[in-house]
Amino acid sequence: MHADHSIKALIFDVFGTLVDWRSSIAAQAQTHLGKNFSLDWLDFADAWRDQYQPSMQKVRSGEIPFCSLDTLHLINLKRVIQDFSLKGIDEQTIAELNLAWHKLGCWSDTQMGLNRIRQKFVIAPCSNGNISLMINLARHNQIHWDAILGSEIAGNYKPNPIVYQASVKALGLNPSEVMMVAAHSFDLKAAADQGLRTAFVARPQEYGPAGAKNHYKAETKPLTEVDYSCSDLNDLATQLGC
Amino acid sequence: MHADHSIKALIFDVFGTLVDWRSSIAAQAQTHLGKNFSLDWLDFADAWRDQYQPSMQKVRSGEIPFCSLDTLHLINLKRVIQDFSLKGIDEQTIAELNLAWHKLGCWSDTQMGLNRIRQKFVIAPCSNGNISLMINLARHNQIHWDAILGSEIAGNYKPNPIVYQASVKALGLNPSEVMMVAAHSFDLKAAADQGLRTAFVARPQEYGPAGAKNHYKAETKPLTEVDYSCSDLNDLATQLGC
Repeated sequence: MHADHSIKALIFDVFGTLVDWRSSIAAQAQTHLGKNFSLDWLDFADAWRDQYQPSMQKVRSGEIPFCSLDTLHLINLKRVIQDFSLKGIDEQTIAELNLAWHKLGCWSDTQMGLNRIRQKFVIAPCSNGNISLMINLARHNQIHWDAILGSEIAGNYKPNPIVYQASVKALGLNPSEVMMVAAHSFDLKAAADQGLRTAFVARPQEYGPAGAKNHYKAETKPLTEVDYSCSDLNDLATQLGC
Repeated sequence: MHADHSIKALIFDVFGTLVDWRSSIAAQAQTHLGKNFSLDWLDFADAWRDQYQPSMQKVRSGEIPFCSLDTLHLINLKRVIQDFSLKGIDEQTIAELNLAWHKLGCWSDTQMGLNRIRQKFVIAPCSNGNISLMINLARHNQIHWDAILGSEIAGNYKPNPIVYQASVKALGLNPSEVMMVAAHSFDLKAAADQGLRTAFVARPQEYGPAGAKNHYKAETKPLTEVDYSCSDLNDLATQLGC
């Protein structure tokens, strides 16, 4: 790969790229609800996540005004609870379970990879998660961000161009000095369209092990042209000379 | 002082409260301009800072749209250069000197005090400085913020109420769960008016040593009612049981 001295900052997708939302959500759902209900908690996690893009699409399309991902997650959770016919769960339990997204565990290379990358570059999340969610995730996983960028400072959701533009602007840089890192090609394509550099990170386990029944399939290779393609964040750090 | 378990996050004024802008700006101005000009560089720093509130007032009043503090600092610097009759300084030198605000040194207790406070509380700057300025200041002084809040996420300048409101909202907390920390009573009063808790930190050297000719005087005691009053950030950490 090429050395590149023009990149000053890296911004990161978080859900799936840095943290393993699926097994974390399944485990926490079981903790909160497992006393009273018996079901496949990975199915429950997948069903909750299935509501993610459609709920944000309502904001992106202008159908509803911007609200935080915490708010969307809560609406989506209530719907999934209904779809699974889980009756009699009190509001406090639902509110606490909704914060499961604030306590997702990271992939095994995330912490060290980010630490290495931060030695040479400014780093920040560019996630659809709200600022307080990102703060709590960083504390949970001992990640040292330079700032929290993404949906909340933009007032919209990726892949809306304004989210990448607002993040670049906050960094005081030109788009070509900022690299978007993600495990999802649609996110990288949208960033590249705004002039950002791109790095793909393979997260083959995002939707479960090979052969899992989830209807989503993790991307093992980028489906769009990227500047860097790597197997994990340590690989990216090495490719960047960190 | 009282123990208080309802406070979840502390947000900090930065210029004057955490960093010594006056001597840092004087030293950097001398570095950039001292080869060609001989003058009292503390006077120069004071003159640059004198433009600070009037320039933000134009935004607060709606006379001009919101722009970053970097932009205002540059306008102000050009005016001061003119006022001091410093001729022939090229644009690049001016642009580099303008970034002096990104490299201010902190007071001797700031780093340890913030580290102690962060063990128990979420911490973030609530400054009029823009996000990239805050990122660079934090890196320069090895400060670990949980997020960068303040003027840029609010699109206005303190003491406009929206800046405190936007910072509280980003933290996902109630105003009474957030404490504003500052060396300036007007800032604390404005935060208290929005329902935040307040802590005053004495910075008697902000405008120079006792007897300095600066027409501003540092506050040695708060001029408004506050929840905590402390001699430095280590004192605040101790009062908060950190």
